Amino acid sequence: MSEVVVGVIGAGRIGKLHVNNILEMPGVRLKMIADPYIDRAWADNLGPKITQNPEDLFSDADIDAILIFSPSDLHAEQIIAAAQAGKHIFCEKPIALDPDNIQQALQAVEEAGVKLQVGFNRRFDPDFRRVKQAVTIGEIGQIHLIKITARDPAPPPIDYVQSSGGMFLDMTIHDFDMVRYLSGSEVEEVYAVGAVMVDPAIGGTGDIDTAITTMRLNSGALAVIDNSRQAVYGYDQRIEVFGSRGSITAGNRTATRTTLTTAEGVVADKPLYFFLERYQESFQVEMEEFICSVRDDQPPAVGGRDGLVSILIGLAAQESMERGLPVRVSEIAGENFT
Amino acid sequence: MSEVVVGVIGAGRIGKLHVNNILEMPGVRLKMIADPYIDRAWADNLGPKITQNPEDLFSDADIDAILIFSPSDLHAEQIIAAAQAGKHIFCEKPIALDPDNIQQALQAVEEAGVKLQVGFNRRFDPDFRRVKQAVTIGEIGQIHLIKITARDPAPPPIDYVQSSGGMFLDMTIHDFDMVRYLSGSEVEEVYAVGAVMVDPAIGGTGDIDTAITTMRLNSGALAVIDNSRQAVYGYDQRIEVFGSRGSITAGNRTATRTTLTTAEGVVADKPLYFFLERYQESFQVEMEEFICSVRDDQPPAVGGRDGLVSILIGLAAQESMERGLPVRVSEIAGENFT
Amino acid sequence: MSEVVVGVIGAGRIGKLHVNNILEMPGVRLKMIADPYIDRAWADNLGPKITQNPEDLFSDADIDAILIFSPSDLHAEQIIAAAQAGKHIFCEKPIALDPDNIQQALQAVEEAGVKLQVGFNRRFDPDFRRVKQAVTIGEIGQIHLIKITARDPAPPPIDYVQSSGGMFLDMTIHDFDMVRYLSGSEVEEVYAVGAVMVDPAIGGTGDIDTAITTMRLNSGALAVIDNSRQAVYGYDQRIEVFGSRGSITAGNRTATRTTLTTAEGVVADKPLYFFLERYQESFQVEMEEFICSVRDDQPPAVGGRDGLVSILIGLAAQESMERGLPVRVSEIAGENFT
Amino acid sequence: MSEVVVGVIGAGRIGKLHVNNILEMPGVRLKMIADPYIDRAWADNLGPKITQNPEDLFSDADIDAILIFSPSDLHAEQIIAAAQAGKHIFCEKPIALDPDNIQQALQAVEEAGVKLQVGFNRRFDPDFRRVKQAVTIGEIGQIHLIKITARDPAPPPIDYVQSSGGMFLDMTIHDFDMVRYLSGSEVEEVYAVGAVMVDPAIGGTGDIDTAITTMRLNSGALAVIDNSRQAVYGYDQRIEVFGSRGSITAGNRTATRTTLTTAEGVVADKPLYFFLERYQESFQVEMEEFICSVRDDQPPAVGGRDGLVSILIGLAAQESMERGLPVRVSEIAGENFT
Repeated sequence: MSEVVVGVIGAGRIGKLHVNNILEMPGVRLKMIADPYIDRAWADNLGPKITQNPEDLFSDADIDAILIFSPSDLHAEQIIAAAQAGKHIFCEKPIALDPDNIQQALQAVEEAGVKLQVGFNRRFDPDFRRVKQAVTIGEIGQIHLIKITARDPAPPPIDYVQSSGGMFLDMTIHDFDMVRYLSGSEVEEVYAVGAVMVDPAIGGTGDIDTAITTMRLNSGALAVIDNSRQAVYGYDQRIEVFGSRGSITAGNRTATRTTLTTAEGVVADKPLYFFLERYQESFQVEMEEFICSVRDDQPPAVGGRDGLVSILIGLAAQESMERGLPVRVSEIAGENFT
Repeated sequence: MSEVVVGVIGAGRIGKLHVNNILEMPGVRLKMIADPYIDRAWADNLGPKITQNPEDLFSDADIDAILIFSPSDLHAEQIIAAAQAGKHIFCEKPIALDPDNIQQALQAVEEAGVKLQVGFNRRFDPDFRRVKQAVTIGEIGQIHLIKITARDPAPPPIDYVQSSGGMFLDMTIHDFDMVRYLSGSEVEEVYAVGAVMVDPAIGGTGDIDTAITTMRLNSGALAVIDNSRQAVYGYDQRIEVFGSRGSITAGNRTATRTTLTTAEGVVADKPLYFFLERYQESFQVEMEEFICSVRDDQPPAVGGRDGLVSILIGLAAQESMERGLPVRVSEIAGENFT
Repeated sequence: MSEVVVGVIGAGRIGKLHVNNILEMPGVRLKMIADPYIDRAWADNLGPKITQNPEDLFSDADIDAILIFSPSDLHAEQIIAAAQAGKHIFCEKPIALDPDNIQQALQAVEEAGVKLQVGFNRRFDPDFRRVKQAVTIGEIGQIHLIKITARDPAPPPIDYVQSSGGMFLDMTIHDFDMVRYLSGSEVEEVYAVGAVMVDPAIGGTGDIDTAITTMRLNSGALAVIDNSRQAVYGYDQRIEVFGSRGSITAGNRTATRTTLTTAEGVVADKPLYFFLERYQESFQVEMEEFICSVRDDQPPAVGGRDGLVSILIGLAAQESMERGLPVRVSEIAGENFT
Repeated sequence: MSEVVVGVIGAGRIGKLHVNNILEMPGVRLKMIADPYIDRAWADNLGPKITQNPEDLFSDADIDAILIFSPSDLHAEQIIAAAQAGKHIFCEKPIALDPDNIQQALQAVEEAGVKLQVGFNRRFDPDFRRVKQAVTIGEIGQIHLIKITARDPAPPPIDYVQSSGGMFLDMTIHDFDMVRYLSGSEVEEVYAVGAVMVDPAIGGTGDIDTAITTMRLNSGALAVIDNSRQAVYGYDQRIEVFGSRGSITAGNRTATRTTLTTAEGVVADKPLYFFLERYQESFQVEMEEFICSVRDDQPPAVGGRDGLVSILIGLAAQESMERGLPVRVSEIAGENFT
């Protein structure tokens, strides 16, 4: 396969970002985009054919892989349809909010023998890869503690909050995946406390905007994530992995490395504003690696099970908070989890 | 009172440190030191009278205040004796490990109408005072989250571990006090997970060496502390308070501000080695403030109740870990707590 | 002009970089590349026509602008030929090493009424633009001092050194331009001291590898540049502008924001390795701005005179070092300088 | 000599600082202070005898060493008198502004066979000692460049400026000494440019307030110092030594390690305000080392020749600026310099 031919479903904010990246990528051809509400001004100059119907992609024999950036509640069924059409699949997270739906999707993928990569883009961030490397090559020894701070610059609109599945499934899910990625361990037990500190309207939907989630991993190590829907200074994304031989931290990225020193103090840049700025590079790399895995017939860097397990941990966190008790992930997983 | 006359009980490591500070302090005279096992070489050149018997201090009419640096299990009874002798009291933490003993000591203090300051020295650290100031003057708005990292450079000897009361009462107690100090709030509920990652011998005593403790405060804010008995790179003491208008952090102090840049990387100093180096200034300031409170008849900066409440939180953490459940501090406090 | 059509002369290291950038740029079409020794493997898949003869570009009526990345000693004559063909011109620095040749090129440009932008890419670096902004909006008040550190990671090959025009014209020239750009002032007098510290072979060519250059600006402010051909830790590119209201500094950029803390110390990343990594973004932005200036008929961001003046300062530095005396730029400029 | 008995001449700002340090130092007894205008409120509670007449110190047989903190123009004659009385001497910088006077003082010291330590306190700063250590143990290889930034927070009163000997002798002299200390090399040639940017009144006295001084050392390395009488953000004291194997830098010290992050930016502390805060520790250590050198009969850490040479470099800088030419230190030294 000298060139990988892809089709895209969904060209909203994240879809456009990926399309723009793909168009600059060597060795890949974007043949078709399916989106019933596509931004015409943007799409008309692109080149790929535009369709309203995802079926057009599934039935196109040229297309090797389908990239799914549609609304989350369509992911599972589109994965199934794509798999049944024999297409490889890249799907934004989450596969679904319901583990049974995820399982069905994963089963279709397995039966079709196609590849599925889930969009946990942060695994491809160069800073977090360096953290992972420090773990892998033993620079910090055996892991004792993992700490993640993840705070958004501003809360999403209330109607988004309402359909988001809750903060743990919408926001913390990335951090759960990061704990698994960095530790190479599974989460056994979760305890989550939440609070409504940012906006009572979020509380009005039954959701929270501030949380601390503690985890016990099967390696014996501990992990903790703190989240907020609003850090007024920008997107706060920090990681620390502490072990028997030391610690490695990843701090925030900034637009410049300048520092202004005046009678008022020594002022450095705020963190980059939000995920599009902060994780720009990771979106590119994850797609490149997906294309490579298709072309070279290699397993994808983030598999379907990674998509499932993060949802299970998120559901455990949700239940922990509701019950006020620690919850074992295996309780949530039931027979889903092996 | 132009000069405050003090007596010291206990001249071990921490006692010596305080004695050396007091001898350089204007407006205070150290008249007598009671320690049956005193380091003679050190004591003989100091000036103050040396005695084996603390009673000599209680009965000396010149002495205004007694500073207690004896082993922890003697603190409560010595507080009571000093109070009954009408002396003001500075006592190293903890007052006792058993809340009932603490209550008895506090009652004796109250009945005698003397002052009692408990040795939570970190409240006097200039960095943490700056954090507190940012909270107080509103620079970070309303508090949403407090995060404390507290890691020792090396675990104590096993026999110390055995009689320490456990990591929460021995080590985390300072952090519990810091959460209360910085938030101006009380801890309602505690959830603690512990692990033995550093040394199985610590586990052998029934204690842990690694922990994450989550707290819900009565302001609604959340707090989390991570502890380790061993950070191989030194004493790791960091604080972050995150609120509606921003965040303030206190990082580690280092011996120098130098940076060495070579082909191997950009290398800065490790944190200062341990508490004697890191909190040097705070030990001085806490004593100065105690002396001032005696001389000017002001309430002490850290009261007896602060000593009690931290123990209650520590016991709640201990019980939480043992039961694997969150524990309300009021459950532990019972009638002790009002 | 809806689309700017360009031709490229020279596709060596820097030429390839620009070509790759241009191919991803909207609103510009690269029609032809002239390079007798072109890297065929790279060029064959690109799309633009390849020629050995720059004349093919000058004579192509479609082409609006010529981008010159050929060897430095060809720049002046190619500028003249392009100008006479009525093409706008982007030219890598230096225009020439001899001010008379530069003058002839500038005159041809002026007579033809075309635009000429010189490749002082660092003016487009986001960090240095932030420094410039701080100056412009008055954040640091009136400028008192400018300090620039510019050190390469490794010296160039000796045959490059021999034909480079010397360190001041080859390397410091960028810093001279930066002093002018940041200060908005002209350099009046230069004093340069040089040394051979890195490699005696460099000294053997009559050149130096280490230098400090002091300048007096016509605003009254002072400036100093320190250069080295070899910083073993990477490309060291720092700027400080100090003024009546404070100071702004630009530090080095690094690959990640991670920090490894072990018993050996607190280790951060080294600076990015060399100019291709460090100034990647600036190369893109300078080309975008050139394309915009052609399309919108605006004056280029860096003009021909900027190319001339930096050479004059470099020659003054060279002469200062040789004579062991400060040298006024006007002495070098003679009638060239107005 | 179990105890070193000292007398102090001059108890102004710097004298008081030293007296307070000495009174807390073990192994030293301060017997007498001579100052005709002494601050009585401060002195009366100290213990040492107060006199108006330095002769009382010279003639006191108990006194081993005289510490001279009087006005600079009295230093040389008091050194001579102390030396003739057989006393060891600590003298604040400068010994004198005129090299001949310095020579006479040094000759008296040599003839008397007493010790003389000159008050270049910065050599005892822990950060700069770490820089020196990196040089000594070879961490940065062979020195190529030394860069020093030294800026005061605010200019001194104009009448002080008038009698200060000029910025190079008053302020830069410390930096000249630091170049010699760190390099272990002598300064061969100096080129200095000065400007009046801060306050025209300083220019009115014939002095400058902003300067860049370039030096060539006899090791072949280069050095540069930038000075300003006013950095509005505080005392800016930074050093970088760059060599064949890397670079070591010393940054500014701050009151705390806290960082405030808000919508306005990431704000760290300004540098400590001035030399009393910044170099507090160095004042203590230099005196301890002087006392040790007297007690243990060791050569002092900073000798009389160090006091002389820095003045010679300062005079060379002064003359360089006035003549607009580089000046060799040997030109200034004449027969003074060997």
